[in-house]
This record gives sequence, structure tokens and C-alpha cells, in this order.
Amino acid sequence: MPSLSPYRQELDYGYAPGFFPSMECLLKRPECARRVLLKTEAQGTEASEKLMELAKRMHVRVELADKALKWISGKDNCYAAVVFTKCEQELAPDRPHIVMHHPSDSGNAGTIMRTALGLGFSDIAMIRPCVDVFDPHTVRSSMGSLFSLNVHVYSDFDEYRRMYPEHVLYPFMLDASVPLEKAVECRIPEKFSLVFGNEGSGLPHEFSCMGQPVRIESNEKVDSLNLSIAAAIGMYAFSGKAGLRSRNEQNE
Amino acid sequence: MPSLSPYRQELDYGYAPGFFPSMECLLKRPECARRVLLKTEAQGTEASEKLMELAKRMHVRVELADKALKWISGKDNCYAAVVFTKCEQELAPDRPHIVMHHPSDSGNAGTIMRTALGLGFSDIAMIRPCVDVFDPHTVRSSMGSLFSLNVHVYSDFDEYRRMYPEHVLYPFMLDASVPLEKAVECRIPEKFSLVFGNEGSGLPHEFSCMGQPVRIESNEKVDSLNLSIAAAIGMYAFSGKAGLRSRNEQNE
Repeated sequence: MPSLSPYRQELDYGYAPGFFPSMECLLKRPECARRVLLKTEAQGTEASEKLMELAKRMHVRVELADKALKWISGKDNCYAAVVFTKCEQELAPDRPHIVMHHPSDSGNAGTIMRTALGLGFSDIAMIRPCVDVFDPHTVRSSMGSLFSLNVHVYSDFDEYRRMYPEHVLYPFMLDASVPLEKAVECRIPEKFSLVFGNEGSGLPHEFSCMGQPVRIESNEKVDSLNLSIAAAIGMYAFSGKAGLRSRNEQNE
Repeated sequence: MPSLSPYRQELDYGYAPGFFPSMECLLKRPECARRVLLKTEAQGTEASEKLMELAKRMHVRVELADKALKWISGKDNCYAAVVFTKCEQELAPDRPHIVMHHPSDSGNAGTIMRTALGLGFSDIAMIRPCVDVFDPHTVRSSMGSLFSLNVHVYSDFDEYRRMYPEHVLYPFMLDASVPLEKAVECRIPEKFSLVFGNEGSGLPHEFSCMGQPVRIESNEKVDSLNLSIAAAIGMYAFSGKAGLRSRNEQNE
């Protein structure tokens, strides 16, 4: 069993820190899970018993690794992590996509993934330069939703566009003329992409001639909304109209 | 001029770290600004010139305080802060309110304030136990929107309710029977309160018999949405229907 390294983007494996992200990795992408790391003092807790049981079922080895958990998370209170093989997925060609153009904050990127999954989106395109999708901080912020989504990184927007030329684009821009409410009143096509720009600079001007740019109406009192907040509002409005959130109501 | 202390909740003053929050404090609540702290290496930059000019106009003293900025922010890259006198405001009795019940994460609380202001809400009730509203991390996450809002902390929900008995309550609960989309299809009263619970535990069960509980429909694939995300989606839906975002369109 080779020894582990502090996280680097070049490695072919990453770390999912925390019980919840670890469970998600084992449940949703067991073929990528290499081993489970557990903190000594977590042994015997309900959470660790559940995690160990699942690891056993998935034939993934568990080991005590107090030091590694500390440098993986940078914290003393990280009790578990899964070491997983990095792998990218192809986006579904007939589903709506979320496109993050040059996102620079791993917390925002992870939060957007978590929100996307919750609102019924399953396919995420990341356009370089962008945060490292497999950075432990991104994985943790995503609460492991990364393992339920198709995420693919493209070297530029053209590369994405060539792959999915039929998707109707909705770039989110502060100076777009059409407000979100109006945009979703029109018929929403089956294949569409919601495109969100960088935290500081937004989307480049050329997106204003692509598809149907939309803006989230807010008042003049704040500069703009946080990126993960704006993306959530956009995804919520579209997912409702596109019926992406219609879940099994059998429990109700 | 007395010397400054590291931030503590008991102090009668707080710190707004960062250029943007500092500007907001000087612009929106100049009567509370005691002094401006600037990092030596920030002198001469455009941002610091703007801040110094504003401080002069508002008759607020500027001083170099490299060490203080480091312990205020916990970071090396904090170039400015404003020292401000803590003060609470009364909530407007005839406006909609955002109620945060037992919020435990200062970043979430600040982000919710920023989003609230952007979507046209001006009045925030915080119900104890809750994060420290004036903690530098809350102020920073709010991007200084704290200084444009009426924020009041109540010792419990009853205290808030006695002050504003006429507000129609909309508690956000995962198991509420009415989805958000349906709730906003009905007439929205002039005085209403959107109530959001704690990050981990949500709202206590008794809120299910208060006003009109609503849930944000999401699919079964994620546990729940992040609190600041859920609050943003709720505020967005209500602010649109209640006309809170109708801004001056004179610039367009």
C-alpha cells in the first residue's frame, strides 16, 4: 500500500474529507474509492460504524490515519476521509447543463455543485482557468455531491460549445436586458445551459450576443450577489419551469 | 486615543475588515465610524485614496495599523478596516422581515444579510442563541450590507413576535406541505416574515403550526440545501411577488 501525499492537483487521486462526503463517495462512486481514512478517536461512534460497514460492503479498506486527516483538512476535527481516484465524466447530451466559466473560489464551486444536484441538474461544465474540481475544499463544500454529478473540465468555452452545439445558452450577466422572471416565462427548451461567470469579473462581454442573456433583478443597494447565491437563484427559477425538481412523491 | 483590543463580543465597538465593508460603513453609517485603519503598503493605491478621501469628508481619523489589521482579520492581506460603534436598530413595523432563528455560522448570517439587501429586504431579526452580528467575519461576509440594514437581536422568538404580532409568518421547513412556488401564488400580505432555522437542525417543530410553513422543493439526492442558499431562494421568490426589487430604472 503506497503512502499518501499531501494533496496536489497533479496526483491521480484526491481526498473527500468528512463523514458525509466519504459516505457519498462510497455510495455513489464506489469504483473510485481506494481506501477510507479514520481518526483513532472516532472509532466506536455511530458515524464511523456506519462508514466502516459501508466500506466493508464495498470492499474498500479502512485504516487509522490521524496525521493524514490533519494535513488533508488543515483541521483537528476531521474524523474521516475517503481517498478516491480522480475521474471525469462526459456530460449527458440531452440534459440541461450548468456551465461555470472561470470560477476561482473552490467553496463557491462546491456549493454550486451541491445546489445543482438538489435542484435536479446533473451535468456541470467547468471552463478553464478554473478551480481544481478535486481539491479537498471543493469536495467538502460540495458535500460529496461531486460523486453524483457528471463534471467535466474544458480548456475553453469553444471546446464545450463544439461538444454541445444544440444547447440554448442563458448567460447570466449583470447588464443583460431580460430579467430572469421574464426569461423563464418563455418556453424552456429541453437542452439548455445556464452559464455563470467569475466571482469578480463576471462573464466576458462576448457572451452578451450568445443565446438569451438574463439578469437577476436586484436593487442598487448592493454591488452584486455572491456567485453561489446568484447561481442558486438562476437554477431554482429554471429547474421549476423545466420540471427538474419533480421528485417521487411516494413518501408524502 | 485609546488602544484597540482584539475583537470580543463584550466590546462596544467592532471592526469592518476590507475596503468594501469599510466604505459601506463610512457611507451608510458614518455616525458609528470611529476611525479607519490602513496598512502601510496600501498607501497610494486607488482604493486607499478613495477610502481616505471619504474618511476626510466624514471627519473620521485615518491611522496606519498593520499589526491590528492582521489580528482583526487573521490574514496578511487585509489592507483596511473601520472601527465602528456597535448599535442596533428597530425593525420597520410596516416592512417585511427576515427572521434568522438560531443561526450558528457567521459566514451564512453575513451572506444572508447581503442577499437580503440585494433583493429588497431591509429588516433582519436574529433570534438568540445566534452568531455575533458584529463579529468581523459576519461583517465581512455581509460585504458591509450590515450598515444599510436594520438588524435587531431578540432573546427568543416570543420577544420578536410580541413586537410584530401582525406579520404573517412563513417558516421554511423541510417537511412543510406547501411548496414555495404555491405559497407565492397566493396574495402576499404587506407585512410578512420569512423565518429560517439553524444550519443543522432547522426550525423547531412548533413552527409547523405558525402562519404558512413552506418548503423549497428539491430532489431526494441531497440532504438539504445550504442555509444561505435556501434563504436566497426563499427571499427571491417572495421579493419578486411582493415587488421589493422594483428599482429605479432611471439608469437604463
